[in-house]
Order: sequence, then structure tokens, then C-alpha cells
Amino acid sequence: MIRIAMLGSGFIGRFYADALHGYRSKDRITSVYSRREETAKKFAQDYNCKHWTTDMEESIAHPYADVVCIALPNNLHEAAVMLCCKHKKAVITTKPLGRNAGEAWRMLEAVEKADVFNGYLEDLVYTPKFLKAQESIKNGAMGRILWAKSRETHPGPHSDWFWDLEQAGGGCILDLGCHCVEITRSYIGKDIKPIEVMCWADTQVKPIEAEDHAIALVKFENGSIGQFEVSWTFRGGLDLRDEVMGTEGTIWVNSFLRTGFEMFTTGKGADYVAEKAESNTGWLFPVGDELNELGYNHMFMDMFNSMEEGKPPKETFYDGYVVNCVLDAAYLSAKTKHWEPVKLDVWRGKTSVTKESNLIEYDTDNYLVKEEITHYGAKKVILKSKKTGKITERVIE
Amino acid sequence: MIRIAMLGSGFIGRFYADALHGYRSKDRITSVYSRREETAKKFAQDYNCKHWTTDMEESIAHPYADVVCIALPNNLHEAAVMLCCKHKKAVITTKPLGRNAGEAWRMLEAVEKADVFNGYLEDLVYTPKFLKAQESIKNGAMGRILWAKSRETHPGPHSDWFWDLEQAGGGCILDLGCHCVEITRSYIGKDIKPIEVMCWADTQVKPIEAEDHAIALVKFENGSIGQFEVSWTFRGGLDLRDEVMGTEGTIWVNSFLRTGFEMFTTGKGADYVAEKAESNTGWLFPVGDELNELGYNHMFMDMFNSMEEGKPPKETFYDGYVVNCVLDAAYLSAKTKHWEPVKLDVWRGKTSVTKESNLIEYDTDNYLVKEEITHYGAKKVILKSKKTGKITERVIE
Amino acid sequence: MIRIAMLGSGFIGRFYADALHGYRSKDRITSVYSRREETAKKFAQDYNCKHWTTDMEESIAHPYADVVCIALPNNLHEAAVMLCCKHKKAVITTKPLGRNAGEAWRMLEAVEKADVFNGYLEDLVYTPKFLKAQESIKNGAMGRILWAKSRETHPGPHSDWFWDLEQAGGGCILDLGCHCVEITRSYIGKDIKPIEVMCWADTQVKPIEAEDHAIALVKFENGSIGQFEVSWTFRGGLDLRDEVMGTEGTIWVNSFLRTGFEMFTTGKGADYVAEKAESNTGWLFPVGDELNELGYNHMFMDMFNSMEEGKPPKETFYDGYVVNCVLDAAYLSAKTKHWEPVKLDVWRGKTSVTKESNLIEYDTDNYLVKEEITHYGAKKVILKSKKTGKITERVIE
Amino acid sequence: MIRIAMLGSGFIGRFYADALHGYRSKDRITSVYSRREETAKKFAQDYNCKHWTTDMEESIAHPYADVVCIALPNNLHEAAVMLCCKHKKAVITTKPLGRNAGEAWRMLEAVEKADVFNGYLEDLVYTPKFLKAQESIKNGAMGRILWAKSRETHPGPHSDWFWDLEQAGGGCILDLGCHCVEITRSYIGKDIKPIEVMCWADTQVKPIEAEDHAIALVKFENGSIGQFEVSWTFRGGLDLRDEVMGTEGTIWVNSFLRTGFEMFTTGKGADYVAEKAESNTGWLFPVGDELNELGYNHMFMDMFNSMEEGKPPKETFYDGYVVNCVLDAAYLSAKTKHWEPVKLDVWRGKTSVTKESNLIEYDTDNYLVKEEITHYGAKKVILKSKKTGKITERVIE
Repeated sequence: MIRIAMLGSGFIGRFYADALHGYRSKDRITSVYSRREETAKKFAQDYNCKHWTTDMEESIAHPYADVVCIALPNNLHEAAVMLCCKHKKAVITTKPLGRNAGEAWRMLEAVEKADVFNGYLEDLVYTPKFLKAQESIKNGAMGRILWAKSRETHPGPHSDWFWDLEQAGGGCILDLGCHCVEITRSYIGKDIKPIEVMCWADTQVKPIEAEDHAIALVKFENGSIGQFEVSWTFRGGLDLRDEVMGTEGTIWVNSFLRTGFEMFTTGKGADYVAEKAESNTGWLFPVGDELNELGYNHMFMDMFNSMEEGKPPKETFYDGYVVNCVLDAAYLSAKTKHWEPVKLDVWRGKTSVTKESNLIEYDTDNYLVKEEITHYGAKKVILKSKKTGKITERVIE
Repeated sequence: MIRIAMLGSGFIGRFYADALHGYRSKDRITSVYSRREETAKKFAQDYNCKHWTTDMEESIAHPYADVVCIALPNNLHEAAVMLCCKHKKAVITTKPLGRNAGEAWRMLEAVEKADVFNGYLEDLVYTPKFLKAQESIKNGAMGRILWAKSRETHPGPHSDWFWDLEQAGGGCILDLGCHCVEITRSYIGKDIKPIEVMCWADTQVKPIEAEDHAIALVKFENGSIGQFEVSWTFRGGLDLRDEVMGTEGTIWVNSFLRTGFEMFTTGKGADYVAEKAESNTGWLFPVGDELNELGYNHMFMDMFNSMEEGKPPKETFYDGYVVNCVLDAAYLSAKTKHWEPVKLDVWRGKTSVTKESNLIEYDTDNYLVKEEITHYGAKKVILKSKKTGKITERVIE
Repeated sequence: MIRIAMLGSGFIGRFYADALHGYRSKDRITSVYSRREETAKKFAQDYNCKHWTTDMEESIAHPYADVVCIALPNNLHEAAVMLCCKHKKAVITTKPLGRNAGEAWRMLEAVEKADVFNGYLEDLVYTPKFLKAQESIKNGAMGRILWAKSRETHPGPHSDWFWDLEQAGGGCILDLGCHCVEITRSYIGKDIKPIEVMCWADTQVKPIEAEDHAIALVKFENGSIGQFEVSWTFRGGLDLRDEVMGTEGTIWVNSFLRTGFEMFTTGKGADYVAEKAESNTGWLFPVGDELNELGYNHMFMDMFNSMEEGKPPKETFYDGYVVNCVLDAAYLSAKTKHWEPVKLDVWRGKTSVTKESNLIEYDTDNYLVKEEITHYGAKKVILKSKKTGKITERVIE
Repeated sequence: MIRIAMLGSGFIGRFYADALHGYRSKDRITSVYSRREETAKKFAQDYNCKHWTTDMEESIAHPYADVVCIALPNNLHEAAVMLCCKHKKAVITTKPLGRNAGEAWRMLEAVEKADVFNGYLEDLVYTPKFLKAQESIKNGAMGRILWAKSRETHPGPHSDWFWDLEQAGGGCILDLGCHCVEITRSYIGKDIKPIEVMCWADTQVKPIEAEDHAIALVKFENGSIGQFEVSWTFRGGLDLRDEVMGTEGTIWVNSFLRTGFEMFTTGKGADYVAEKAESNTGWLFPVGDELNELGYNHMFMDMFNSMEEGKPPKETFYDGYVVNCVLDAAYLSAKTKHWEPVKLDVWRGKTSVTKESNLIEYDTDNYLVKEEITHYGAKKVILKSKKTGKITERVIE
């Protein structure tokens, strides 16, 4: 059994709490901190927490809290983490870790110096679909990964602070891109170094300073390409999709808007359908179990099992730091209009990885370009001469 | 915390065990019974059970078992239930409850006389999609339910006993139809009485005595129609779908083969994909978290929460009994080629329900048949005269 | 070049005309008949027809008309066909051929006696998807067909006469079931005799005399089962789907509501989306080219190519007659609640077809029931002893 | 009736011929030129052409040819076009127009100087789905277009010359990107100037000099973003999809791999499934009518109707030229790793278009950032103060 101090009682805090107390869980939130007394009290009541407070340190230091779960606006992460280190408390933090790599680095350094358990709550690498996809990749079903795209777009976040550049630290790149970067890293291999980033970003629709739409490419040391597409201007709900291309296969994951549940209603009995749904009449696409589909259950399971086994979880502050470094490069690239290097002060993965050869031997004289069955049922090969480089085709019975 | 004695350690026993011990669960299997020592031992090892035995009663009577979970072939359910009653143990049983209504009735009577907690493990009315769909229906988003179809087809069950008429009690009607009947009852309203059944069944492909393909219609007292389509001859995996028509809406649920996860592989690294998948190359459609998508997690949550709160779960032996009665009528109808009445000795739902009127007032002289927008953007109504019954159309600006 | 006299200028007449004059067609409508002068004129103008009339015979007899296309309410088909025979004109008729088998039979007899070209305009066996599916079946990719279902449901027809039992001759069974019967016959094999029908029908929603919802099973001589699901009470648009099960494969065709085109709109610029769409905001699913997707283009191509080559088209009045016979049995069954025989006075397909054996030799002692790969990667077979009938399982390396 | 001289008799020439002679078409190919006598003869036979030749000019000059259709490798387009101009023949050319903007410009200049009808055969802006999507955009259903992506990826082209840099002029950017650029231009508005391009390209898999995978962003003068994703290394068939985001809506078009036709087969009767399909067992996704779904029919209809009406078609050589200019910028950007300007010597669309304001008035003091319905059913607005720029939220009953 794990006892949790929850910092923050807003949208994401409640999502976390639903997952933590879900199914027949043995874990419990024992203390909640909120900036406002009213919401702290309400949360404590709803989730049956014995202790609530408007003093963050009190909650962190609470003797019945084994781990602190940070579900606060981005600008408050660093201070909360420092208090956890002070009190030697295990700490798990919502995404993104910091508003930038500098903040992330200081948090990483602090938890490692204090030697406390640290987890980075990137739920989307724990979705059931992602876990299964990753397993297939590990088994080799995709061959070598060439490209991994993650897309998260919706009509914009729920709370005011997201829209404020100072508190949030950025727009949709920081809010949504952090998910996508970690997802694509995980498909490609978290031990492969992200090298450089090219990003376009713009404020196309919303009257805000931060970007509301962005697309970026991330180049990895082995030649693989990560891509993210993020926006707060999408119409139609929450579009959450991954696409992966490998030399031996393809993966398409749709985590939200098309999951095998379709409903038409004229609008009688209209009510809440799903996170960021835009409508409650006509054709609707609810998700069965949002908490599970979004990875919260498997994420907390990994976090707490790891804590109990005394080993680091799949996602640590170091991962959060890498993500922030990639995003910093994306923000810079959006301004300079160049590919910008990812500045990683510490790299813990593989080094000096090179691109694999793309020469497939066909016979002593030729490389194979392509093999196919024609309309007429014959087998055809397209070959490249090793000597001359000339391309020819040959029909084989 | 609930301590479980698991009877049976085959395919379904292991599925249950994975669900029971899943996530951060507080519940534990403390004893396992299997007919063969070897498999009992293996199961005990894999799931960390302290006690295993090849003596069923020993497991049922075990002092550290709060509830007995029956995961045995159909022909052994009754004997197991009787032993649970003898030892006054709470009991939950896999589907179908009995091989026929007679067996089901005796089990129902026994648990009620013994006054023990009883649960019917119909997982498919606990899938996340089903639960959400049902909520929408309760909220009125579908209006009055006209028709609910549930389809379960696949290339046939894993274990030999399913194919043996004596042990199984039937073919795909009993094996799969039991799911479909409870699903459609649940969409239409479990308090609405099933009245009569029309069923076609045949052994089209397999060299067995039981049916390997069947389709049935179930008429309910309010005029709603349930439908099941079941087969052991389907090619392409496990097809698990519901379709519901209401006066105000439509529901389409795909629980397995199309859930937003698509994968193509040339076949490198081929391995287990999903329950009853038929292939591991080409386009594949894995399910992220089978246990959750198939309802096991929410089912056990309801069972054990109910036990702890001292109230009956959503699905009890009574439901299993109703299902068996409907299936008995289906088997009979397949032979007589007539609609056959559902013989329910005890009915605990609503009685004397009648069909709702289908007259919608348009104006003092007419009922409304249909209203639509034409190609040309005009609004058109089709009306029926209250007096003459004559149908006319009228274009309204 | 074919010159057409079009009888009828309503919804279906205009659909036909769009197809006939579509793409770079060499064919032209040269005469149009309508009961009302105003609509005849309008149609002639819109489609550039030289001749229009309110006298049906005048149009049929018109010297510049090579073929007569009947697009009239059901109760007028017979009279129109008789006039075509009188004037020895080739005739093609919209579906259903007659309001019942009696009418259909008289029309069939008349055109055959008059020896005129006759085509039955069942567009849905000419859809591009259907044609390709049928080709795959011919090539053996599905093995032996076990079951073929066709579903057509929508919120009800556009014109008043459909809702009037006298003019239409029936409700959704006649209007939509005629499509489904011919589709399922075509999947199963048009030379296989339909033997008997079981049908449920009800008027669940609309204030009409005819049925607004029906489901039927059609048994064929070789043991295959056809199924139709038809309704005028479906919410959400036009649901047009086929499902086919064969011993070697599965076919799923969605012809309308999910064809790879998805659109979300807040409702600005709302306009006509698709036939029988119910909404123009939220998620919409338009069809790209309705005429082609619904089979009109390939249908008329077959009709006129056949005429020019002096051979019968794929669909003749005889097919229309068979469909009416099946539907008559369905109507009767809905009343008697029994399986009712299909009364075919003339059968032109195969006779005395029997069900194929379902015994697959495994070795000298056993038949094969099932072969599968277990979770653990082993191959398992389930066998039935030829002598004892006993079922066993055997794991093979 | 149009009489066509077909230059080239390979894969695309035959696709064109099938479309040109398709349905009940009045148009006919009267002459065919091929470099090899054997294939010219075969084509003439198959399509019933009276004249065939291995002398290109002979075919172009043929008196019974009204229009010349160029279906040759990229490096032969220019010479063929010049001959058409010499003989004052109407000319329509397959994509891409040139191997680069220089070639395209010379062709454009030549046809305009010679004053001959010229059409650019970009079929994918003529697909039924695209045409309908474009209509919805024109009607305002999408609001202002923010982003349009087109993706075309497959396992590589059929003929050897595509893989040869000299003959093809490039790799997948030129082969597939030309489609995507014209598609995205058409969604965004062909009168909006493409300004600059950022492109990543690599040879990840194939042993060739040209790129086999590329992704690019194209910025338009009004701030809209076009995107293309192209590859010859995709596994699983032909992936042909568009995605469009507008301020009022979303469009998702799947033109090939998921069009509502799904088939599983164990592999009996295996044969040709669809263009660039990779497998003929397991789950397959055929397209009903490839020619129509890929736009060929509507394309030639527009070309020939326009010729007959003496007006330019929707797609002219000028469009081909613009596409080549965009692709030249993409190739340059892939090398320089910067955004590169699109160098258009002649621009015939709108000029000095600016980005629209993104300020939505909420009340006299505030702009509206977002409006939403909360979990609890309340309406919430997020506002930005006009004066201070501060973001606040407000719950409204």
C-alpha cells in the first residue's frame, strides 16, 4: 500500500485521484494540498482524504504520505520538488517536468542529490495500446524504426493558467508536445540520442502570446525521425494518434476519437461525453474507460511497483529533462527557422550510433531495390548493379 | 481485501487470475483447485497461491478463502455450487450458469436457500464501452430501445471439452449466446421480460454434434427485439460487436477487432497477438488491454465491492437463470422452427408492460410520419390524417 | 448510343438521369413522362430532353426511345410493363419488380412472351465494392459461403406514396428487403435455390399500417443462410452494410456511412450532405460519389452493353420475380410465426444441391476439429475419433 | 467525342486507358505510341486502337487524334510537349509536369505561345471525396483553413525508371510530393501564394541515390500551412490520406487503405487485390473502383468537357509549374536545412494577402479565448483582458 500526498486538486489532480483509487486499489491519497481552502476541502471530501491543507510544505511533510504527487501548474513544479527533496520524500510529477530545460535540470539534480525516488508522469507511454505496440517493436515485428509521429490536438485546455505564458511557460508545444516527444522517443528507442529539431509554430487562432499550433521534426542519431503535431485549435474533440513506420511494418494507434465506440443521438439526455468532446448531439465517439485508455492506471502501477521494488520507474525525471531539452530546441527553431541542436548536458543512452546500411544483396552483381508481384501474377525484381549503379528490372517466372 | 479460492486453472481461470491480481489490487487468490496436480501446482506457482489441491471440496472449504470462483467446464458448475452452499461460501461462477435452465434453477435455489453471496461472471456487460453505452441509454440519449443485437463469433474455443456435447451442454449458442443474451437484455432493460424466441442453428463446418453457427431473435414484453449472432466458424479473429437502435439514437460498439489499433507486419518477430487472432502477419488488430476491454476488471470490482457492502452485485445467479431459460427456448425453436415461449418459473422484473404508442401529434387533423430537409433546402413533412388515414406530403418554408 | 424514355421524374428518376448522363456518356434521355405536367417539364429542362408528356403510352411509344426506364411508384409498374410489351420496347424497371410475386410473374411472362429486352434495376449488386467482393468469392478466397447478411436501414423514404400500403404494397420489407435479398442471393450464388424464410416484422415507431422494421433469415438449398435487416426507424443516416462469412474468409462492406470520408463542422455553411443524412453539424460522413458508390453507373453500363450485345443483363425480370417470391414468404412468415416455404413456380438455377460434408480428415483415426497456436507458441489440434466420436486435444511441437 | 493519342503504354497509360474507355464513354484512344513495338502492339490490341507506332511524332501528328495524352517517364515530357506545340495539338500530361521548375516553365511557355489546350493530369484533386470536401470548404463549413496535410506512401513504384535519378529527376518527393502539393494548395486555395518550404528528406532504406522518404511544410501567404509526407518505404499498401484543420471544422479523407471494404482470407484463390497492396492473405482492404476513387474519371471528364467548351480545365500546365517550383524549394531546403523561398517567376493568384485577426470580441473589456461546458454541466469562458492581457476564467450559469 502506498499513501499519497496530492498537490493540486484541479482537472488533472482529480484524473489522477480517480486512477489511484480506481478498481480494487490498495493505495490511498492521505493528504491533499490546494491553493484554495474550498477546493482542498471539496477534494478531501470527494476522495475521502483524512488531511487537507493550503500549506504545500505541510502536505509534503505529512508523516502518512509515502510519496508526493505534483499536479500543479508548470511554474510551481520546481518549488514543490525542492520541498520534497528537503523532506526526503519520493516524488512524482505531472508533465512537463519544467517550463524549460533549465528548470528541469535543477529538479533532476536535486532529486538525484537527495537520492529520492522520482517519477515523471508521462501517462501516454503507458496506454494499453502503446505498451502493446512497444512490445511488438521489441519483438522485431516492425524491423528498424524509420519514423514515429505522435499527434495531440484539441480545442484548447480547460484552465486559465495554461493560456498564460508566464505560468505555463509556453503554449501547445509545451502542453502537448511534451507527450509527443516522449512517445516518439519511446517508439524509436529511449537510448537513441535526439540530435536536432526543426519546428514551425504559430498563433493562428487564439488571442494569446503563446503558440496555438506547431509541427516539428526531431532527428535521432540513428537517422530515425520523430514528429509531433500539436494544436489548441483542432475542431471535433481530442485527436490523439500515433503513426510509426518501420522497415518491416506499420503501426497506427488511435487513442481517443476512433476506438470502436460510435453513437448517434438526436440530443435527448445530452450530457458529458468525453474529455474535450465538442458536441453532444449527432455522431459521437466516446471512450470506454478514459483513465485506462489514457494510461493512468498502468502508469501508477509502474510507479508504485517500482518504488516497492526499490528500482527506478520506466519514466524518471531524467526523461522529463530530455523532453524539455528537445522542446527548448523546438522553440528556438521556430524562431530561427533552422534545424537547432538538442543541447543535452548529460546523455545516458547509447553514443556514436550510426545509420544502418541500406544495401540488400540480391546476387553477386546486384543489390535488390524492390520485389513485387505484377498484375499478371509474375514476380518482378528491380535491381541495382553493384558496379555501374544502373537500375534494371527483371521478370522471374 | 478479498481472498479467493479458484476452481479451475485453464484458459479462463488464468484470465480471471490476471484480472484479480492486476493493477495494484488488494485481492488475492489463496487457494487453487485443478483436476490435475500438475496444472494446479503450475497455477499456484505462477500466481503465488499458498494452497493448491486436486480435491475440490478442500479448496472450497479452505479457511482463507472468502469467496469461491468457479472456472470449470459447464458440467461441473452444479456440483461445485452445491459444495459452496454446504460450506456457506460466497460463490461467483463463470458463464453460462448451467447447461440448461434446470441446472441453473437448482443452483439458484441452492444459493438463495443457503443465503450465500452469488455472482454471475458475465464479463461483457462490464466492458468499459458497454458501461458507458448503458449510461447513455439511462440518460435517455437513445430514446426507447427498439432493437439490440450482440454478435460474438470466432474460429472456435481453445479446449477440448467445449466441443463435447455432454460436458459443454451445447455448442456456440450456449458458449457465446449466453453473453449475447445478457448483453441485449441489459441494453433493453433487465426488468423487461423476454417472451419468446425464434432461432436458426446448424452445424455448417465442424465435425461435431453441437451447432457451430446460430442466429436468434428474442422478443421482449415491450415489443423490443434482442438478437444474437454466434458462431465457431468465423474467420479473421474474434468478432465482438453490439448494435442498438433507439427512437432517438444508435449505438455501435466494436469490442475487439477494430478498437483503434492497427498494425502491419511482414512477419518478423511474430508472436501472440490477441485472443483468437488467426494470423500474425499482414494487417493485425490487437487490443490494448484485453482484460480491461473484455470487462474482467470492472466485473470483479463490482463483485467484491458488492460483497463488502453486503448487497447483491449487478449480475447474480438469477440473471444466469434467465439467460439459460432464453437459451433453452432458442434450442427448442431451432428444432421446432417456431417461435418458442421463454419459460420463466420466476420473474422478478416488471410485468404487464405494453408497447408504447407510435402516434406523434402533428396538428389537430394529422399525425407526423416524417420530417425532412429536401435536396433543395426546403422542409417537408409527411402526414397521416387522423380521420381518413390518408398519407400526404406538405412542403413548409 | 442508347436513347431512353424515362417514366417518372421524382427522386429515383433524377438519380437515374444523373447516372445515365454522367461522366462522358454517349447515352441520352430523349423522352420523359410524369403524371404532373409541371414536373415533366422541369425534368425535361434540367436534363435537356427533347420530349415530355403526361401520357405514359406516348413516351413508351416514342420513336426515338430505344429503351423504357420505369421509375414509378410500385403500383404502376405492371401497367407500364404491359405497355412496353405492346409496343415491343426494351424495358428496365426500378426495384421491387412487383408489389408481390403475382404481379412480378405477370410482368415476367409478358416480357418473355413479347420477347423484349428486360432488366431489373437492382443497383446494389453493381456497387464497385460488391463487384469486387463477388469476384473474390468466385476466385475462391472465401471458400464455401455460410452466411450473407445485408442491412439497409434509414429514417424513412422521401415520398408520400412509400408510406401508403396500397401504392407501395408493403413497408420496409418491400422497399429495402428487395435490395437485401438480391444482394445475399448474389453472394451465396444466384443459382442456389432459396427454400424457406423466417421473418419478424413490426410497426415500432411510425403511425402507419405497413411494417417499419423487419429482420429475416432465408435458407438456401445448400444450407447457406441469407439475412436481411431493414428499417425505416434507424437514426444517424443511411446504414448500408453487408457481412459475409465463408469457410475461408470474411467480407465486410460498408457502402455509405463509413467510407473513409469524415468531416466535423460547427455548422457554418451547412448544406445537403448525403442521401438520408440526418444532420449537418458535428461529425458527418459524406460519400464521395453517391451515384457510383450506389452502383448506378455500373448497372446502366451492364444494361446497355448487354442490350447492344444482344444478351440478357446480369439482372433480369426473372431475378425481380425471385426476389418478390422470397419477400412474399417473408410477409407470410411474419404473420404465421413459422418458417414459410419460398414458392417459386419456375426455378432456373441448380436443383438438388446438398450441403457439403464437414468432415476434414486428420489421420486414419481422426477428423480435425480445430488447429491453433497456443499462448505459449505450441501448435495444438483438437480431434474427433472416427470410431468413438470422442473429442481429444493433442499438442504438437 | 474526343479522339486521343496515347504516348506511353505502361502502368499509368493503361490506367488512363481504362478510365478513358470506361463506363459508356464516347471517347476513344485512336493512336498509341510506345518505345517498344511489342508493347505498342499489345496496347493497341487490348484497347482496340486503330493506329500504333514507335515514332512519337507520328502519333502526335495523327489526323484522327484531337488531343495528346502524355504518359511517359518524366525525362521525356518536355520533348513530347514541344512536338505537340509544333503540331498545334491539345496536350494533357501526367504528373509531375517537369523534373524541375525550369523544364516546367519551358513547357508552360511553349503551350501558351502555341495557344494549345493544356491540361495537367493531377488526378488526386478529382477524387470524388476531394471534390466533395472542396465543396464543403467553399460553402464555409470549415471556416478559415489553418493546415492541410496530404500523405502518400507505399512500398515503391513499379517501373525501373522511377528509381533512376536521371530519368525520374528525383525520388519520392517528385513522384508523390507533386500530388500532395497540389492537393494541399487546392484545400488552402489555389489563389493563395506558397511562400516558403521546409523539408526533410533521406534515403533510409533503398540502395538508391534519390530520397525514399521526405516530409515538408509549405507556408502560404495567408499563414496557412501545407504539409506533405511521402515515402517509398511504407509497409502495408498504399496509404493515401488527407487531413485538414479549419477554424470551424476538420476533414479526414482516406482514399485507399480504409474505404469501407474489409476482407479476411486464408489465402485460397489469392490474386491481385489493389494497387501496391503488399499481401493477399489475412485482412485485406481492397478499393471498389480504383479508377473512380483515384479521380481518373472525373479528371478526364473535366479535361474533355473543358476542351469542348473552349475553356481551360481546372488543372493546367500553370498548376504543374507551381508544383514544380514548390518541389524545387523542398529539394533545396532538404540540403540547406533552412526554410527556402518558393521562386515563382509568374504568379497568377491573389497578392498581398495577410493573416486574419484572431481576436474574438467577448465584451467591451475582453476577448474570448475559449468557451466550454465543464464536467459539471456549467458553461465556462476563458477571457483575455483587452487592456492588461491578463487571462481569467469565468463560470456562467
